[in-house]
Amino acid sequence: MLYEPLQASGDLQTIVDGVNLLWVLVVTFLIFFMHAGFAMLEAGQVRSKNVANQLTKNLLTWSVGVTVFFLIGAGVSSLVGGGGFSPAFDVSSQNDWVTWLFGAVFAMTAATIVSGAVAGRAKLRAYVGYTFLLAAVIYPVVTGLTWAGGHLSFGGIPFADFAGGMIVHGMGGIAGLTAAWMLGPRMDRYNDDGTANVIPGHSMTFAVLGTLILAFGWYGFNVGTAASVLTLEEGAVSLGAFAYVGRVAMTTTIAMACGAMGAAAVAWARTGKVDTLYVANGLLAGLVGITAIPHTTSWLGAFAVGGLAGGQLPLVFSFVENRLKIDDVCAVFPVHGSAGVLGTLLFPFVANGARFEAVTGVAHTTSNVVTAFVAQLIGVAVIAAWTIAATGLVWGAFKAMGQARVTPEHERDGLDVSEHGVETYPEFGEDEGVVADGGLVGDQASSDLRTDGGTVQTDNYVAAQRGDNE
Amino acid sequence: MLYEPLQASGDLQTIVDGVNLLWVLVVTFLIFFMHAGFAMLEAGQVRSKNVANQLTKNLLTWSVGVTVFFLIGAGVSSLVGGGGFSPAFDVSSQNDWVTWLFGAVFAMTAATIVSGAVAGRAKLRAYVGYTFLLAAVIYPVVTGLTWAGGHLSFGGIPFADFAGGMIVHGMGGIAGLTAAWMLGPRMDRYNDDGTANVIPGHSMTFAVLGTLILAFGWYGFNVGTAASVLTLEEGAVSLGAFAYVGRVAMTTTIAMACGAMGAAAVAWARTGKVDTLYVANGLLAGLVGITAIPHTTSWLGAFAVGGLAGGQLPLVFSFVENRLKIDDVCAVFPVHGSAGVLGTLLFPFVANGARFEAVTGVAHTTSNVVTAFVAQLIGVAVIAAWTIAATGLVWGAFKAMGQARVTPEHERDGLDVSEHGVETYPEFGEDEGVVADGGLVGDQASSDLRTDGGTVQTDNYVAAQRGDNE
Amino acid sequence: MLYEPLQASGDLQTIVDGVNLLWVLVVTFLIFFMHAGFAMLEAGQVRSKNVANQLTKNLLTWSVGVTVFFLIGAGVSSLVGGGGFSPAFDVSSQNDWVTWLFGAVFAMTAATIVSGAVAGRAKLRAYVGYTFLLAAVIYPVVTGLTWAGGHLSFGGIPFADFAGGMIVHGMGGIAGLTAAWMLGPRMDRYNDDGTANVIPGHSMTFAVLGTLILAFGWYGFNVGTAASVLTLEEGAVSLGAFAYVGRVAMTTTIAMACGAMGAAAVAWARTGKVDTLYVANGLLAGLVGITAIPHTTSWLGAFAVGGLAGGQLPLVFSFVENRLKIDDVCAVFPVHGSAGVLGTLLFPFVANGARFEAVTGVAHTTSNVVTAFVAQLIGVAVIAAWTIAATGLVWGAFKAMGQARVTPEHERDGLDVSEHGVETYPEFGEDEGVVADGGLVGDQASSDLRTDGGTVQTDNYVAAQRGDNE
Repeated sequence: MLYEPLQASGDLQTIVDGVNLLWVLVVTFLIFFMHAGFAMLEAGQVRSKNVANQLTKNLLTWSVGVTVFFLIGAGVSSLVGGGGFSPAFDVSSQNDWVTWLFGAVFAMTAATIVSGAVAGRAKLRAYVGYTFLLAAVIYPVVTGLTWAGGHLSFGGIPFADFAGGMIVHGMGGIAGLTAAWMLGPRMDRYNDDGTANVIPGHSMTFAVLGTLILAFGWYGFNVGTAASVLTLEEGAVSLGAFAYVGRVAMTTTIAMACGAMGAAAVAWARTGKVDTLYVANGLLAGLVGITAIPHTTSWLGAFAVGGLAGGQLPLVFSFVENRLKIDDVCAVFPVHGSAGVLGTLLFPFVANGARFEAVTGVAHTTSNVVTAFVAQLIGVAVIAAWTIAATGLVWGAFKAMGQARVTPEHERDGLDVSEHGVETYPEFGEDEGVVADGGLVGDQASSDLRTDGGTVQTDNYVAAQRGDNE
Repeated sequence: MLYEPLQASGDLQTIVDGVNLLWVLVVTFLIFFMHAGFAMLEAGQVRSKNVANQLTKNLLTWSVGVTVFFLIGAGVSSLVGGGGFSPAFDVSSQNDWVTWLFGAVFAMTAATIVSGAVAGRAKLRAYVGYTFLLAAVIYPVVTGLTWAGGHLSFGGIPFADFAGGMIVHGMGGIAGLTAAWMLGPRMDRYNDDGTANVIPGHSMTFAVLGTLILAFGWYGFNVGTAASVLTLEEGAVSLGAFAYVGRVAMTTTIAMACGAMGAAAVAWARTGKVDTLYVANGLLAGLVGITAIPHTTSWLGAFAVGGLAGGQLPLVFSFVENRLKIDDVCAVFPVHGSAGVLGTLLFPFVANGARFEAVTGVAHTTSNVVTAFVAQLIGVAVIAAWTIAATGLVWGAFKAMGQARVTPEHERDGLDVSEHGVETYPEFGEDEGVVADGGLVGDQASSDLRTDGGTVQTDNYVAAQRGDNE
Repeated sequence: MLYEPLQASGDLQTIVDGVNLLWVLVVTFLIFFMHAGFAMLEAGQVRSKNVANQLTKNLLTWSVGVTVFFLIGAGVSSLVGGGGFSPAFDVSSQNDWVTWLFGAVFAMTAATIVSGAVAGRAKLRAYVGYTFLLAAVIYPVVTGLTWAGGHLSFGGIPFADFAGGMIVHGMGGIAGLTAAWMLGPRMDRYNDDGTANVIPGHSMTFAVLGTLILAFGWYGFNVGTAASVLTLEEGAVSLGAFAYVGRVAMTTTIAMACGAMGAAAVAWARTGKVDTLYVANGLLAGLVGITAIPHTTSWLGAFAVGGLAGGQLPLVFSFVENRLKIDDVCAVFPVHGSAGVLGTLLFPFVANGARFEAVTGVAHTTSNVVTAFVAQLIGVAVIAAWTIAATGLVWGAFKAMGQARVTPEHERDGLDVSEHGVETYPEFGEDEGVVADGGLVGDQASSDLRTDGGTVQTDNYVAAQRGDNE
């Protein structure tokens, strides 16, 4: 071993760069893996006749989206942010592509959320077209206004969204709700009297698998947004975002747990049963809720955010289903939309005082808390308005061209056959028993329905579902 | 680039801290992901009517358990360890929460093992209640006696358990066996003459998926327990636990592989077939076997530990099933319990000499090997006794209150409907064919059974299974 | 904090070692996780009666293979490479086992690819025997000629394969094709007139899950091959392979995306439908295509490599199926073989000029591009010839001994029952409906077939498939 004076800053900068690159790459991989989670969560929540369609949409969301974000989206974000159009293929250093990829996995998360809302009736070409525009413009405008530009603020306090509780999840959930509203519900989702039929997904196992994959990836999403392990300033190394990484990891964990328990408790209070899908989606809602604010929330605040985000899920889902009568198939609005808005707005109220000051740059006083809340409100309102307008415009245009929705025949037969020419489970499925005994049709179909409010219109559903098979 | 003297220790300490934090976070995420593995492994091994129940228990194990461990459990561990009640919400630095979360994922692994043993008949509230107590007291007492306190030793040699072969897996496996024994077997699991019916799980694919997710996470579990990449002592940096991390990675890999081969060989010798589920569970048993000792075992020792841990699986499973007549649904005792005990006890016999000395602090002599073995025996006995007593007491109390087990009707119909109000696979399932032809019932039900010893009581099983459907 | 001169090189070397170890371990875990991806991808693409067989083969590939590679294979690689027989159990330092494990996960990737090609008819003992030889000799010879020895070159330019596009994937895909050719097709795969019947896999969901797990692990595979985060030379730290890690991450991402889009586009152009399985396998083909060259390819090159690798998939698959009439069940040749060859050969044509020079050590001139292309051609030819010869010899020997293929009865009943004594889905499956109504058999079986070229021979298929059931 040699003992000679270290070439201090040069070596230190290299060590800092290497360690930070390593960390960002690892969390980027974790966030990418969330696509497997979304694919399974959504596949599990749709009918078996639409599973391959859902899987294909997930594969193409990533494939088309990341390509578009490389060629166009990242440049639009920098343009809106005020840095000029700087597309991802035009980097000044090879390792800038790490930064691009880290941004891309967040962008693709926002994109893929939408696919769960429009399941079972959107045309593949419409969905892919929307994904193109989301990755090219809609999402980049949001990041240009916020992370890339910092244009949203109030009274000197900037809009705060650490890992994308509003920018990614809120945006995706609101886009999904808008698209589902534009498309209209799946056939037989609502009866003539306006009551809803529940069309359960085909596999709770895949849905829960997806949930747990997402939770795993979410540690990358939230904790990984603390992207600088080390920083070098004035010749001295210090922990960068890792100075508070323990708080991020703790609040993410607690909010996730309380989200699951909150949804379970509300479901149990309403029905006496602990619906597995509410527990799973509640866990995710807890994660969404904390995503904007894991670096500032106190431990008690994490309990509150998680519990509220989970608890609102069954209520908002019911509101969307029964009041708005929007067929948000995979519950993306209560999971990503309202939970994301909730956590973003709660920022000043649940923040640890010292962390509030570190992030906002102002003292933790009542008046500054109110100012920060207004900044959050403005940010949420601007992002929501832009997302609704852009999404509504795009799907409205598709609709006007007759390209938004598959034909009723295709919808009834399932999108797997009509759009993809495949059967997801060629050896299983409801058709087997049906042929053997005409009388079984009603039994079988009714077991496909769960009442939600006591009103199941089996005959109506069966007639439409089986239509030309009889 | 600047060339100035480095502020040595300050910068070095920061680099050491940052790199170690990074590593601990990554492996913590991997260990968390094991919950997806347990969920799939257990879901695959239960009947389709109980899958959602199993999934819900897994989601709630994490959610309830980690919350309780935050509020109570970590404090109990420090209290028993001798450091006073120091709960996790009361930290001296934000980044202490990383240490807490690293401990929490081990705690939740112990907790979730139990759910596989009590599948198919435990009340959800009983299971959640037990999880609460396990996370609050039962497991923290074990860690308080060992990792947190070092109270278990003999002749100056401490009880050695690197990553929780006994503390986590042995404890969980023994707790599962105790709870399954208290609950009694599932209906139709045993015939009147005491012979056992095999009730196969509903999906080998999910079971193997879970196995491979667990193996992936286990690299975090074992290799990650080598938690210090770097250390700084007296102004000089050295590799911390990473000085022997290669050994940990190698022994974990070899034991896993030999576990699968050992179980496959024994299964093949007994039946002439290579039962997939034994291979999968054998792989896990090999991992459990090495978990206490991956940092000390020689490469030849890893072959022995893995082979024995895998090879004992079919034998111990059969013993539990046919002699003890305990219905350990997902084989958690042979996988986690006996394999964990085995590896823990083998420590002094399979250790590399230099590593034995580094860990025990004494020379690698025959007499010290014997002393170390006694220390291991004492540790295993204390942990087992405490686990059996506490678990038996809790489930005994539930039983006395009539809250341990669901009603026979609910058990027959499946816990998914009765406890959760859901169907896991509303479009598939055995009910389809059954209605079409009464004569099919016998055929169908008999295909649900596998003989184990040649005695299948089809009629008995069918009668109970179908009871009020006919 | 102390401020004293740093013991520079000693500390720096330790930091470099620790960080590099950390990174290599993390990516090794990710690459290991690819076994879960292969297991799910292959399980999804086979009939339900052969799923457990496929899963068992995957478990045993890893278990047997890694053990053999430990005892023999690594030593053969070093021997062929010119470093003498240096088996993995005989290391000079404990942490050399990290290097071994890093090599082992690549070796096992090559091994497991073969299992998808021989699905549904290979004897378990034959497959395990071949895996033994692949891990002991066949693959180690390939790495001995290349990574370990650098024996392949032309005109002073070495054969270039960064992460195993040819060495791992090309080799595995060619081995799979050879073994499938030796074994012959599954019964009923081809009609008497030579036309092919498509036998769809049992679960598109598992196939896509496997795809996304593989893509996740592939980031470890490709980006992780940039294995040195930091290097220390002449007392100064610099980024090692991390100097270009951003390029590796970008090209891997873009090629993956373009692979999916390329396959989707070709499938859509040929049939008007976007076949989900082609999109998934196209994504993987894009990854395979870039695997040899992610560190050198320009961003435009990544588009080309990915698009071509994906686009060739449906065409090469059809060629293998309809011209070669080889039953490559899981399409391992078009995914791993031809895509790997393609990317490897494209190296000099898609390389960024500066990166070409850094890797080859010669100027980026037309003549050197041609020379490099010849070097690539030679490497591909040598590896392919060796793989075909060795694989053909082994399976030919098995065949001569009557040990290559299961009996027709076992094949018809499925390998799960005959080789493993298990049913993968004891509660589901096609048998249910069949018994109820003889007339359903034809309907059911025909729904199991997809035409590929318009010629489905339902009766023929049904007769053979159902043979002695009627």
